[in-house]
Amino acid sequence: MSVQKPSIPKGTRDFSAIEVIRRDFIFDTIKQVFRLFGYQPLETPAMENLSTLLGKYGEEGDKLLFRILNSGDFMSAADGRDLNSMNSSELSTLICEKGLRYDLTVPFARYVVQHRNEIVFPFKRYQIQPVWRADRPQKGRYREFFQCDADVIGSDSLLNEYELVRIIDEVFKRLRINAVIKINNRKILTGIAEVIGEHERFQDLTTAIDKLEKTGIEDVMKDLSDRGFSASSIDRLKPFINLSGNNSEKLAKLSEMLEASSEGQKGIGELKELFALFGFGPLSSEPELDITLARGLNYYTGAIIEVKAKDVVIGSICGGGRYDNLTGVFGLDGVSGVGISFGADRIYDVMSQLNLFEDIEASITQVLVLNFGPASTRFCQQLLDVLRSLSIVSELYPDPVKLKKQLAYADARKIPYVIMAGEDEIKQNLLTVKTMSTGEQRKITAEEFASFAESHFRRMT
Amino acid sequence: MSVQKPSIPKGTRDFSAIEVIRRDFIFDTIKQVFRLFGYQPLETPAMENLSTLLGKYGEEGDKLLFRILNSGDFMSAADGRDLNSMNSSELSTLICEKGLRYDLTVPFARYVVQHRNEIVFPFKRYQIQPVWRADRPQKGRYREFFQCDADVIGSDSLLNEYELVRIIDEVFKRLRINAVIKINNRKILTGIAEVIGEHERFQDLTTAIDKLEKTGIEDVMKDLSDRGFSASSIDRLKPFINLSGNNSEKLAKLSEMLEASSEGQKGIGELKELFALFGFGPLSSEPELDITLARGLNYYTGAIIEVKAKDVVIGSICGGGRYDNLTGVFGLDGVSGVGISFGADRIYDVMSQLNLFEDIEASITQVLVLNFGPASTRFCQQLLDVLRSLSIVSELYPDPVKLKKQLAYADARKIPYVIMAGEDEIKQNLLTVKTMSTGEQRKITAEEFASFAESHFRRMT
Repeated sequence: MSVQKPSIPKGTRDFSAIEVIRRDFIFDTIKQVFRLFGYQPLETPAMENLSTLLGKYGEEGDKLLFRILNSGDFMSAADGRDLNSMNSSELSTLICEKGLRYDLTVPFARYVVQHRNEIVFPFKRYQIQPVWRADRPQKGRYREFFQCDADVIGSDSLLNEYELVRIIDEVFKRLRINAVIKINNRKILTGIAEVIGEHERFQDLTTAIDKLEKTGIEDVMKDLSDRGFSASSIDRLKPFINLSGNNSEKLAKLSEMLEASSEGQKGIGELKELFALFGFGPLSSEPELDITLARGLNYYTGAIIEVKAKDVVIGSICGGGRYDNLTGVFGLDGVSGVGISFGADRIYDVMSQLNLFEDIEASITQVLVLNFGPASTRFCQQLLDVLRSLSIVSELYPDPVKLKKQLAYADARKIPYVIMAGEDEIKQNLLTVKTMSTGEQRKITAEEFASFAESHFRRMT
Repeated sequence: MSVQKPSIPKGTRDFSAIEVIRRDFIFDTIKQVFRLFGYQPLETPAMENLSTLLGKYGEEGDKLLFRILNSGDFMSAADGRDLNSMNSSELSTLICEKGLRYDLTVPFARYVVQHRNEIVFPFKRYQIQPVWRADRPQKGRYREFFQCDADVIGSDSLLNEYELVRIIDEVFKRLRINAVIKINNRKILTGIAEVIGEHERFQDLTTAIDKLEKTGIEDVMKDLSDRGFSASSIDRLKPFINLSGNNSEKLAKLSEMLEASSEGQKGIGELKELFALFGFGPLSSEPELDITLARGLNYYTGAIIEVKAKDVVIGSICGGGRYDNLTGVFGLDGVSGVGISFGADRIYDVMSQLNLFEDIEASITQVLVLNFGPASTRFCQQLLDVLRSLSIVSELYPDPVKLKKQLAYADARKIPYVIMAGEDEIKQNLLTVKTMSTGEQRKITAEEFASFAESHFRRMT
């Protein structure tokens, strides 16, 4: 038999025990908070019809879809056509009907249209599932990764934005990450474009401004000039970029600066209402108004939200905003909403760097009971029953091999405690508990064991 | 814009809120028990290299793999070859390098070989992930479904079988399903084939016997005769099929009947040891020795395990066994182990039919706070903060629309309680709690609210 050196496709990952447990902690935390706020779970298939996916992510996105070959005799679909004359795109259309989910938004839109008659609006749904993109893999960018989205559709109320910010705050509080929530409104950006006289170059303006944090003001100015912005409009933009003060000071100044733009005034009105709501609740810290926040995304129509970690230099760990017409492409108009999405991989990196995972690893074996052969098995099994009834993760070493080998296993698995009960000890109803980190051993009686375990070993949460 | 009628690929499913919550309850229960017994989680990518998957599931299995089209200009790989002359299989090999995970066993074997130098043996891993098969969809059979596997490799001890049976017992106890665990041993089946003189037709024998429960003894005899078994060997088989008594009576009889087979005696020895272990622990009920249990699977070498629900007629809800040489196909010999797999879809059906889900739906909104406009928002928000701090899933209706519409929303969402606090009530520091099922309304003061909520509303677990 030929021996293969096994590997996995580039851009994909295996997750080992400790990684799965840490990732589950992040996903479960997000899920719990989504649920607490009344968002309902949805799960959609990994595969969607290509007709659902194609054309929804732009030309570039179409190329990044993973397509699934039709099963069975797909060549019969060629039906005499000359395959050799086709390019990859033509052939793939002929032999593939399905593709892997590229994000959670299009499947959500598809679901809403498909079930429009059963859904009660406003519809608050969350979805935590993997997506696949045939992107060039690089550091921090994978071909398979999870998205964690919550959206509410069918309501224009700013209370939705407020609650989503509360959700963000609660999630990061529970994860013990110091987060800065930044807020903007697309209408402010439109207003700025109007009053500096560059309304027609709105897209260029936001693309350039979006790089402010990365490249600095000089580069943004140069970029705008390269894009054909006049010196006078760039001059008029500067006071916006240099806007300072606390949120209400900024809003007051903006109100004057955008006096000439009714769209801008609308944006200010929405922001004032939203920041008034922030005043209500016990947020960890007040979100920051950042009028340079554009998120490079064209489809936001109202609030724009971005979250950064205070203590780690990394991209945004959560983002979102309000959008119009989620389902128009499927023939259902007038469905607008607002949503957020957590970046689980970046959150994982932040928590690793800040050592925030230390307390959650009680789901890894805490106690190994050593195996001294059949005569001691029943005694050992009773100890395990006690431990497990206390939700303490524990194992019996399955084979009665040499002590040294069993201890090496405990060591390699980083199991903090080992229990030894040889025949002589069992006769005296005794057992020994060894703390692996210190080597310390103490003898206790079988009767003491339950209360000892309860006070010394960590329970699975 | 062309309007699409959206749909999903056949054999796949969308899961709505209530379905996700119920499924999560099943998966979380299984996961918790796996962890409690020291099994460590593993997650592998949805996509594996086809070289990893092909040839592992037989010819039929290869056909059922979902293959993923190479991204980019895959046609360039054709490199002048005549595509029109190729059949589907040849072409797919040329243009696909990856396929979707077909089960969790092959990715596990691949992982073990790839990480052989880091893994500490015995290695206990569990894995709960979806798999994909291009099977013809039919009732209860899907193209995307979850598997929930636990395996331990690198230990021959029967304590592993015992612990897996304990895991099965604990899972079904927690799910409140009355389960019957049936046990057999491949060596018993080999022994039977030997003593009836049909050792060479072992596979035929087990395939026929496996249908006993479905078709009855007469059909099995006829089937065996059709497969060329002599009348005398069929006669010699009958006492095995008719074996009766409790487990130890069966084992005693078997010991005599299989006296001539050393393999059979080995099987009896293993079963005696295992049933002695069952005597130790607090199992809900003793597993049943069923020597007709074959599970149609060729690769089991020792214990064979199957679980049925007592109160619902449905196929097996869990199964497993001991196997040799998990990783030989990847060039690593001598890795044997034992594992089990839970059938989540069937467990879901059993629990639905027995109404076992009723208590777990507190993750669906319990309380809707009605919206009487901006003046009452702050008051309402404080009520929500109280509810959420108590882990009671609650929402504020986001728009101040007509009362009737808000109540219709609560009704359609099956939200059990509604809270109303209009301007007049707020002035008096009062609010009204309405029980949707009865229409009953009661007024309470804001001060009473927290203790009222605590004693009346269900908390998310």
